[in-house]
Amino acid sequence: MPNSILQPLKWRGNENGYLQFIDQTALPLKKIYISCHNEAILYSAIRSLKVRGAPLIGVAGAFGVCLIAKNIRTPNPTGFLKELRLKSERLASARPTAVNLSWAIKRMLAVAQKGSFRNAAALKESLLIEAKRILSEDIAMCEAIGRYGSKLIKNNSNILTHCNAGTLATGRFGTALSAIYAAKQQGKKIHVYVDETRPLLQGARLTAWELTQAGINCTLICDNMAGPLMAQGKIDCVIVGADRIARNGDTANKTGTYGLSVLAKAHKIPFYVAAPVSTFDLKTKSGRDIVIEHREEKEVLEFAGRRTAPKEMKAYNPAFDVTPAKFITAFITNNGIRRQIKTKI
Amino acid sequence: MPNSILQPLKWRGNENGYLQFIDQTALPLKKIYISCHNEAILYSAIRSLKVRGAPLIGVAGAFGVCLIAKNIRTPNPTGFLKELRLKSERLASARPTAVNLSWAIKRMLAVAQKGSFRNAAALKESLLIEAKRILSEDIAMCEAIGRYGSKLIKNNSNILTHCNAGTLATGRFGTALSAIYAAKQQGKKIHVYVDETRPLLQGARLTAWELTQAGINCTLICDNMAGPLMAQGKIDCVIVGADRIARNGDTANKTGTYGLSVLAKAHKIPFYVAAPVSTFDLKTKSGRDIVIEHREEKEVLEFAGRRTAPKEMKAYNPAFDVTPAKFITAFITNNGIRRQIKTKI
Repeated sequence: MPNSILQPLKWRGNENGYLQFIDQTALPLKKIYISCHNEAILYSAIRSLKVRGAPLIGVAGAFGVCLIAKNIRTPNPTGFLKELRLKSERLASARPTAVNLSWAIKRMLAVAQKGSFRNAAALKESLLIEAKRILSEDIAMCEAIGRYGSKLIKNNSNILTHCNAGTLATGRFGTALSAIYAAKQQGKKIHVYVDETRPLLQGARLTAWELTQAGINCTLICDNMAGPLMAQGKIDCVIVGADRIARNGDTANKTGTYGLSVLAKAHKIPFYVAAPVSTFDLKTKSGRDIVIEHREEKEVLEFAGRRTAPKEMKAYNPAFDVTPAKFITAFITNNGIRRQIKTKI
Repeated sequence: MPNSILQPLKWRGNENGYLQFIDQTALPLKKIYISCHNEAILYSAIRSLKVRGAPLIGVAGAFGVCLIAKNIRTPNPTGFLKELRLKSERLASARPTAVNLSWAIKRMLAVAQKGSFRNAAALKESLLIEAKRILSEDIAMCEAIGRYGSKLIKNNSNILTHCNAGTLATGRFGTALSAIYAAKQQGKKIHVYVDETRPLLQGARLTAWELTQAGINCTLICDNMAGPLMAQGKIDCVIVGADRIARNGDTANKTGTYGLSVLAKAHKIPFYVAAPVSTFDLKTKSGRDIVIEHREEKEVLEFAGRRTAPKEMKAYNPAFDVTPAKFITAFITNNGIRRQIKTKI
């Protein structure tokens, strides 16, 4: 993997240290790092998308439990654990759709609950070790996804991606973009069409930024331009990330993914979903059971903070949509490629 | 038709008067009228989309020929006509995709060329009469489209529209939106989903404005949200306008229309194109022969002068796409409804 790829989040210091992350709402015009010393700041950073991307908010949630532990003043072990659990559950509610946040927080709480610790300091130390393990596992998963995914990218390809499933969405390297970074590293000639991804423009702001930083040839399009590009034969494959994958393969991802999958199917273009196996939520039977987060109307009524619609107007703003398994050619996971559709595309 | 529907463009005074139109780039936040005394201002208003919408730029082009005639100082009839033709041809080049602009200007030039006029004043008077006829014919066409189109709108429907094919795009009432206004006038309960229509947000700015002004229940969505709404059964039909319709029925309209047609087909939702018969360009055999205007990259890279993408980024920005005839359920024209696809939807 190219060394130049940035790591969006780091823990600074020992178990009494703090979390530092890049403010993704300021990109691409400003590169600002936020030093976060308590869970309230992290909660609002997750809600306001300063930290975003399903895998990264999982990692952030894990370190969030470390921040909670650091700030608890109750000496009594039962009281300490109770407070840790309650505050962690609140943190887990910051964003409901991605499975990673609640998954990482549960894993952290299991560490707290299973061991009998000498004292609070020992518990905090164990929690930090676990959070760092979650981060390094995430980076290793991303590298594996990149390795497998790059095999699906042919030389001289045009790849379409939506939203940001890159290094900024994960511990490092990304999911969908990890495959692209690995393909580039292997010397393949590639060009990426980047969906701007309304309403919050994660494509225009984040994917465009990290791809240009990494020297990947890329072009920004409005979300509604993917159709004509496909009709003209200018897209060889679509690769997106995932926020939650149900047991039957139905996949929740950023709004707009479903429409792309229908277009890809109509144009016989392979449609790949790149995600670590932890994104597969076996408790969720199908897409119908996935809770879709609806966000504030003003994200649609405004553009980059400026009002565009008349003031009487109302808006619809689901953050995600569900792509049925039948429209997904293959899943690119850290354990390998899982072909979804048997029919040849 | 409701009396409240605004007329976006009017000629003020006699043949030495001027053209007045609403500045559509200032909507919906400001309602500004521009008084236009010469063709250079009109040319740049058309190019910068202050006046837009295929039928309306046709009407504007017709009055533009009146402005050109008004400002010609050559007394010699041959010289006068030559100057009129040259300047009119330049005006016709302001936007290449819509057929209406060049059509209206040709019709005006035919008036100038066929008659032998006593003097320049008589010619200018005839030109103004012709331009006013083009405007009133356009309004009558829109009313007819509304009458026919409203028959396709069932009571309690949810209608999806893209871009602005409303009163702001025509002499008055619009094409796609004329059907909606007429359905509302007939007492039908309707709700309209408005695609914001990136990059220039004609949906968010113009369609949202004129629908809320007319008291139509409507909701703004990002272009990439149409897919999930269709999948949830929340769209009963799609109605859009057209910039140019080829002989075989292939239709050029605002970028994003093609993708909607593919989605509508996949979800078995009727997809209607509303346009006057003058939009059918019999000289153009199929969609492959339609010239697509590509606009400046910064429309995609910026919003309202504010950069959203990183500065190294490039963008793709076709103003239109082509929807193949096979995805169009019916054309709603001023001469009636022309069913395109025989198979039942």
